[in-house]
Amino acid sequence: VSRRPIRSIALGTGPEFDLIRRFLDGAGALPPGVTVGPGDDCAVVEGAALAVSTDLSVEDVHFRRAWLAPEEIGYRAAAAALSDLAAVAARPVGVLVSLAAPAADAADYAVRVMDGVHEAAQAADAALIGGDVAASPHGLVLDVTVVGEAPQPVLRSGARPGDELWVSGALGGAAAAVHAWMAGAEPPPAARKAFARPRPRTREAQWLAARGVLHAMLDLSDGLAGDAGHLAAASGVRIILFPDAIPVHPAVPDVLGGTEGALRLALGGGEDYELCFTAPPGVVAPLAHEFETEFGTPLTRVGRVVEGAGLAIRSPDGATEPLDTAGFSHFRGEGP
Amino acid sequence: VSRRPIRSIALGTGPEFDLIRRFLDGAGALPPGVTVGPGDDCAVVEGAALAVSTDLSVEDVHFRRAWLAPEEIGYRAAAAALSDLAAVAARPVGVLVSLAAPAADAADYAVRVMDGVHEAAQAADAALIGGDVAASPHGLVLDVTVVGEAPQPVLRSGARPGDELWVSGALGGAAAAVHAWMAGAEPPPAARKAFARPRPRTREAQWLAARGVLHAMLDLSDGLAGDAGHLAAASGVRIILFPDAIPVHPAVPDVLGGTEGALRLALGGGEDYELCFTAPPGVVAPLAHEFETEFGTPLTRVGRVVEGAGLAIRSPDGATEPLDTAGFSHFRGEGP
Repeated sequence: VSRRPIRSIALGTGPEFDLIRRFLDGAGALPPGVTVGPGDDCAVVEGAALAVSTDLSVEDVHFRRAWLAPEEIGYRAAAAALSDLAAVAARPVGVLVSLAAPAADAADYAVRVMDGVHEAAQAADAALIGGDVAASPHGLVLDVTVVGEAPQPVLRSGARPGDELWVSGALGGAAAAVHAWMAGAEPPPAARKAFARPRPRTREAQWLAARGVLHAMLDLSDGLAGDAGHLAAASGVRIILFPDAIPVHPAVPDVLGGTEGALRLALGGGEDYELCFTAPPGVVAPLAHEFETEFGTPLTRVGRVVEGAGLAIRSPDGATEPLDTAGFSHFRGEGP
Repeated sequence: VSRRPIRSIALGTGPEFDLIRRFLDGAGALPPGVTVGPGDDCAVVEGAALAVSTDLSVEDVHFRRAWLAPEEIGYRAAAAALSDLAAVAARPVGVLVSLAAPAADAADYAVRVMDGVHEAAQAADAALIGGDVAASPHGLVLDVTVVGEAPQPVLRSGARPGDELWVSGALGGAAAAVHAWMAGAEPPPAARKAFARPRPRTREAQWLAARGVLHAMLDLSDGLAGDAGHLAAASGVRIILFPDAIPVHPAVPDVLGGTEGALRLALGGGEDYELCFTAPPGVVAPLAHEFETEFGTPLTRVGRVVEGAGLAIRSPDGATEPLDTAGFSHFRGEGP
């Protein structure tokens, strides 16, 4: 695949443009489809259908500087945005970053943040194609816009009664890290990594989409309980979760000192950026082993789709009871 | 043109989604080409080539609440971003807004900001197709991403020696308003309007592009001196400005109490969001009257393109001398 060099457009003079030049230093080549890269008023991307999404990262709301290196702040912000492309099974192409930074950060710190953005973008075969910079009177704000090719986007509205509900990976790791930090402790490395270096499941989503098994999909940014609720609302169906099946991240009991509350953190903790999707009965299980071999992460069936509305949980005796997702909002509101 | 109703995707529960529902209330129908609107993980836009740009608006950096109504803050942020589509002669399609707002603003104030966004988007035949919301510990931050169709984007790198340099409209009005506010005065209505309600020249740019006269174009966000410098750098040419020809906004001498310094404000004042373009000699003048009749704003020839690099100004005796754009940075740094 031919990739043309980035920075084909010369920038004018001034400190803002000197900073932008430094931001672009870490960028690789432009992916195919990008006909105008950074430096002009717009980037231009060719493709039959393009998916676009934006994701905000605000200091002391989404992250704290004391918790993360600047490269991790940038990586995480870009990974969270790229995860929205995974959620519709799009192929990532470009990333635009708007960065508001205090004047004191406008040299090395901001450049290190952008190095993290480049790392996340390149890991997804995307590149920085634009953005904006501004002074911030208080704290860092990153807004990452992602552009991907999505000729057949998988929406959250396609779930049908009878579908199975699946998730990739393990849940609650990022929330476990926040839980540890909020308690004044250093999180275990696996939990810290889940928070600081989430891996957007862009290839995994395209792999599943290519096999034609997906009815509906989203990425887990608000926690399984919240996001399954969004999927149910968008699809006009009811979702029943199987609590015993939920793949709890091993760092969760580590941080909590036991299994008590682990399920609540796995259900309510956000920002795992795993895939959550529905598929017709029986079609995913035969693919799960190959998926795990290919991507090093499991697929787990965690629920089913029925007629109705809202979210329910299957209790140990097999009965179902409504799940009040508001009960988990203190996790979402917990950190940082 | 068929426009499908917006809000086709049901959102889940929770205060964040209640707010998003209110944000979407003011939105119109989806423009053609938008196959997935707001509410899913991504918007999806169909088109052969799409232009994408982002533009940050930070409270107390780009605007002050004391100066603008919330609707104007939203309108201005969206208009500034849409102006980047005009700069490449793209047809606006969609707007995504990331809004970080203090908790106290998360009800009526933020909704009024978004009403202003809708107004700007609809005036450009675009619609809100996505975004993000977050709490902000300090002040409003809006990042507006715009998506437009640009089968033949006009870049800032296409200027050639011999070209004429033209601008639309009048320059310095927005800077005059800032100048007045910074001096503790209320700006004259025309200056206030130039700052609060800039009109992105999206239709004007497409009109010029359709006539095949444009070699290079950008929009004036940093001031004519700064932006002509960017155009020269991107094109690898030298630009000579004609100071006597520059169309100074009538509010500028009003605010300054005379013509002294008016030219400096017109050259150095940013955020006029007028078009600045180069074209071969003699091709624009025959179109200027029709342009003014169509759009109610003039086209003015303000310079020429020669071989070399950098920016120069023609002095009254016909000689040219280099223009130090850094000399104008105090205007750009002046406000708010």
